Amino acid sequence: MARLDFWFDFASTYSYPAAMRVAGVAAARGVGVGWRPFLLGPLFKAFGWDDSPFNLHPLKGRYMWRDLERLCARAGLPFVRPAPFPQHSVLAARVALIALDQPWGADFCRAVFHAEFGEGRQIADRAVLAALLHDHATDPQEVLAQAEAPGHKERLRAETAEAQRLGLFGAPSFVTPDGELFWGHDRLEQAVDWAADRASASG
Amino acid sequence: MARLDFWFDFASTYSYPAAMRVAGVAAARGVGVGWRPFLLGPLFKAFGWDDSPFNLHPLKGRYMWRDLERLCARAGLPFVRPAPFPQHSVLAARVALIALDQPWGADFCRAVFHAEFGEGRQIADRAVLAALLHDHATDPQEVLAQAEAPGHKERLRAETAEAQRLGLFGAPSFVTPDGELFWGHDRLEQAVDWAADRASASG
Repeated sequence: MARLDFWFDFASTYSYPAAMRVAGVAAARGVGVGWRPFLLGPLFKAFGWDDSPFNLHPLKGRYMWRDLERLCARAGLPFVRPAPFPQHSVLAARVALIALDQPWGADFCRAVFHAEFGEGRQIADRAVLAALLHDHATDPQEVLAQAEAPGHKERLRAETAEAQRLGLFGAPSFVTPDGELFWGHDRLEQAVDWAADRASASG
Repeated sequence: MARLDFWFDFASTYSYPAAMRVAGVAAARGVGVGWRPFLLGPLFKAFGWDDSPFNLHPLKGRYMWRDLERLCARAGLPFVRPAPFPQHSVLAARVALIALDQPWGADFCRAVFHAEFGEGRQIADRAVLAALLHDHATDPQEVLAQAEAPGHKERLRAETAEAQRLGLFGAPSFVTPDGELFWGHDRLEQAVDWAADRASASG
């Protein structure tokens, strides 16, 4: 079956529409999606940046918010500008790695993005994540405790290292099994087409 | 009639597919295009950059070349990576401002982009520009001399200042009469839709 990996950071603005749309766009072409949460922070640090490039470059940042607002309106997605930006996404990402071992993993990821960019809620807040987990897990506090255990923290570090090994420099990014990298929400359709076409050529 | 301004720098990679496609995409929706050559260099200098961001950020640069190659293949456009990059585009832009006073202005702009990114020719070379002008102007050397006259140089400076006033930070950019800014080749269709929809709403 055709596949593609969807690399995202919960703090990343364009990862929001990508997360809401990727499953539908991929399913329409028979492509399976691997959800790969990671942290942009260490990548940015390696580039010498201590903040989101949208904060470091205010003109580009101002444009991004307007662009995202228009883009969400076209896609029929609710949009609230989160404050502060970027949100601290490390706990949400750790929880997501646990969630993605379960059938409800992608639903949880979409719920986090919706809470953050559709409702303006604080995704760094344990109570917010617990409430979102409540729809799926019988014991949200247990999942949160598990997410913060040392052994599990290492998992997110390893995923972020893998993102760096793949040459990622932003999010969302899409990577196909033959190693093609596509960066940005506006490359979603092209990445899915690539994965579908390559799989049918070799199948 | 619906209109939109297409701001570009001949040295800008994504301005190439935008320049080749904008007239067709816009005409299909009844939108007229204002061709607005300008120089990215002074904008980048104001951000503290002394080179193309694709050279300053090698990982992003490597991705851009691959992305552009794929994108041109999909659009059926020939692609040769120009060297050196970026090309020195100031003379081409000055000539383009003269050309755009004539009915063949857009054709000349497309010819420059084709020479640079479709054939790998040096657009900073007077002889290359003269050869491209030869298809349209009876005296290419006269046009080149005019382009380098002091009064005319000021025109390009004023256009670049106008780009800064509009809040542009990259190219290609599209600006609609109601002041909406769209950045990047991948916003071409959306910008044209915006221009067409606003014009029909107010028409």
